[in-house]
Amino acid sequence: MHVAVIGANGGIGRELLPRLVDAGHDPIGVVRDESQFDAVRERGGEPRLGDLEGEFAPALEGADAVVFTAGAGGNTGWDKTLLIDLWGARRSIKASVEHGIDRFVMISAYTASDPLAEPDALRPYRVAKRCADDYLERSTLDATILRPTSLTDEEGTGHVSAAFEHRDENGDAIPRADVAQTVVACLGNDETIGETIRLFGGDTPIESAIGRD
Amino acid sequence: MHVAVIGANGGIGRELLPRLVDAGHDPIGVVRDESQFDAVRERGGEPRLGDLEGEFAPALEGADAVVFTAGAGGNTGWDKTLLIDLWGARRSIKASVEHGIDRFVMISAYTASDPLAEPDALRPYRVAKRCADDYLERSTLDATILRPTSLTDEEGTGHVSAAFEHRDENGDAIPRADVAQTVVACLGNDETIGETIRLFGGDTPIESAIGRD
Repeated sequence: MHVAVIGANGGIGRELLPRLVDAGHDPIGVVRDESQFDAVRERGGEPRLGDLEGEFAPALEGADAVVFTAGAGGNTGWDKTLLIDLWGARRSIKASVEHGIDRFVMISAYTASDPLAEPDALRPYRVAKRCADDYLERSTLDATILRPTSLTDEEGTGHVSAAFEHRDENGDAIPRADVAQTVVACLGNDETIGETIRLFGGDTPIESAIGRD
Repeated sequence: MHVAVIGANGGIGRELLPRLVDAGHDPIGVVRDESQFDAVRERGGEPRLGDLEGEFAPALEGADAVVFTAGAGGNTGWDKTLLIDLWGARRSIKASVEHGIDRFVMISAYTASDPLAEPDALRPYRVAKRCADDYLERSTLDATILRPTSLTDEEGTGHVSAAFEHRDENGDAIPRADVAQTVVACLGNDETIGETIRLFGGDTPIESAIGRD
């Protein structure tokens, strides 16, 4: 499949591109700046410009699936959280529908399930992620929402712990590499369509963890 | 009807309470601080505490209709836009559903229809308002969404110009008092259920302007 990765040069995006290649896919790396093109090419992706606040939809041309892993990050203001994490996600979903691309994997956040749960500084971020997730759930797309817990830059293990929504379960931090590998596994398993899956570090092989047995 | 006004001490809320009384309703003024109780009572409302970031749902007890006119305002950060204008609105909608209150009038903003339309500093605000509106539209409530253009503190005229969504129409600024009177008119006209109505200053009597002839 041609898999468009929105946020291809981010922490998870960089781990995802080579893993898509290994799985036989053709990744399209959507980035906001041409200076990131070489980094995308080095990881086996076809770089394309897509500005989530501007000209964006053409970047998805020809894609069979879309992965949203863009985010404003922690060094910008909450205005960018509204514009990128929320509205940018909605634009990506809308553009996928318009292009007739059915498959969509959203990288959300563990805490999106209950934005006000803890009285900490990330509440507004959780609101944005949750609202984007809800918009996706209500779309016509074949969607999988992944909600990883705290992310690390450790080596990938190929193992995770997955909890389908509504089970109350906590768990360990998870390497970005394992989140990326879980995206690949989801794209290869249609049983994950329509599911919201919380992801933790763990010791179940990824392919098994995302199966619902 | 017992009409709960969320944001009862805001610019539109203050105009709304006495107009609800005049129309034979019993307004409940939901505010976030007891220091605002006297102001609510002076305008004929029963004051109640409701914290959109904390304990909130009990404030709607016994209401037959809800009007959301709360907002973080221009002197706070965008984090509050996410927490009040967006998540607070969603919580209000959810609490209405839980209380079995069917009727809901949302005070939105003209520009919510196209958040990125103009390259100005209000884009993140429009995103928040739009996402709240969409959540309401998809709820089970009997909803009316009002999207007034620029607001003024001029005297009310009893006249407006209304445009139902998807007509491309611009118009004059509108006094908050006329927005408030339009809320009262909507509560008395079930034909406005399911409608998103843009409001401008104008010269059509309010009752006629919100009718769809």
